[in-house]
Amino acid sequence: MTRLKLGLMIFPGFEMLDAYGPLEMCSMHQKLFEIFAIGPSLDPVKTNSGGPATMPDLTFENATQMDILLVPGGTGWRDVVSDQSQLDWLRGQAERAQWVTSVCTGSLILAAAGLLDGKRATTNKMAFPRTTPAYPAVHWQPSARWVVDGKFLTSSGVSAGMDMALDLIARIAGPEAAEQAAHWAEYTRNPDPDHDPFAVEAP
Amino acid sequence: MTRLKLGLMIFPGFEMLDAYGPLEMCSMHQKLFEIFAIGPSLDPVKTNSGGPATMPDLTFENATQMDILLVPGGTGWRDVVSDQSQLDWLRGQAERAQWVTSVCTGSLILAAAGLLDGKRATTNKMAFPRTTPAYPAVHWQPSARWVVDGKFLTSSGVSAGMDMALDLIARIAGPEAAEQAAHWAEYTRNPDPDHDPFAVEAP
Repeated sequence: MTRLKLGLMIFPGFEMLDAYGPLEMCSMHQKLFEIFAIGPSLDPVKTNSGGPATMPDLTFENATQMDILLVPGGTGWRDVVSDQSQLDWLRGQAERAQWVTSVCTGSLILAAAGLLDGKRATTNKMAFPRTTPAYPAVHWQPSARWVVDGKFLTSSGVSAGMDMALDLIARIAGPEAAEQAAHWAEYTRNPDPDHDPFAVEAP
Repeated sequence: MTRLKLGLMIFPGFEMLDAYGPLEMCSMHQKLFEIFAIGPSLDPVKTNSGGPATMPDLTFENATQMDILLVPGGTGWRDVVSDQSQLDWLRGQAERAQWVTSVCTGSLILAAAGLLDGKRATTNKMAFPRTTPAYPAVHWQPSARWVVDGKFLTSSGVSAGMDMALDLIARIAGPEAAEQAAHWAEYTRNPDPDHDPFAVEAP
């Protein structure tokens, strides 16, 4: 079986666990996934919270088509949504990708690219009241660990990305593959997308 | 208050979530922690599971004394334990550090450096039966999410590092600071070091 190309979009100010949580779960099945970090250039990219920088494997300019996109959040999302060239790149990739996923405020980047118009989605719960009203064409869910609408999987804040990634693995390779990944990572999974301990009121 | 210097030891073949899980939790309190990745050189360091490389901020040679050490696991641990210069570095840092922590097979590195002799500790649970017998001077715990013995905190596999990091935050800044970090990261914490869903039988 050809491995699926999993492209992590990175940008200055991304949130580290938004990226590395889902990547860790997917990396438990290296025969399924080939992981690439895709950034503005090949320079190291800093997170929004200190800690070491991440090296991109590819750039927005030279990346080939990915099968799966993973868009993390982090305070840097605000710069990405005002950069039309990055949104254009994302739209182009998303059109042909089999799965488009986001963690935390990453869904606001998908929303800014118009990819979630008319779709159900969620995002970071603390930021929810002040971020979601800017994208009223999206059916934002204030109580959801993650939301699946067609090929789009959007998760709640930070740690929720790991639960979403396990659901993605289940959809691609079956429920047992997801259970294996969680077990190998000694991760106590929340398997229910509707169980959201951090739910908020709709604004 | 001066921030505590938190030094993440990295080496080729480290496990990404072992490192980034605890760093994420600590990064929720940027006023408390200043994070450095410390590697063999300033070249990017690859994980053991594909995915992007991490840029060290400092090298074993030029790193100043850290207040907290974080040693991740990953298949690369086997190379580290046979590298006396890296073990020497670790011993030197550990002597003056306030806290010495490990995730997953990272505790085998601490054990190889002799730092856990006579102490209680734990490690990755799948690897437990075949890794721990090599270090018989350590009181290995087959059922523990994480173990605290003096200034040493050792956690079980991969995801357990996040629970351990929250305990570290509680010890440094109080239980409320730990609860805040978990809440901001939308992480459902396992607060009980003795509750280990991945416990094994002693070999």
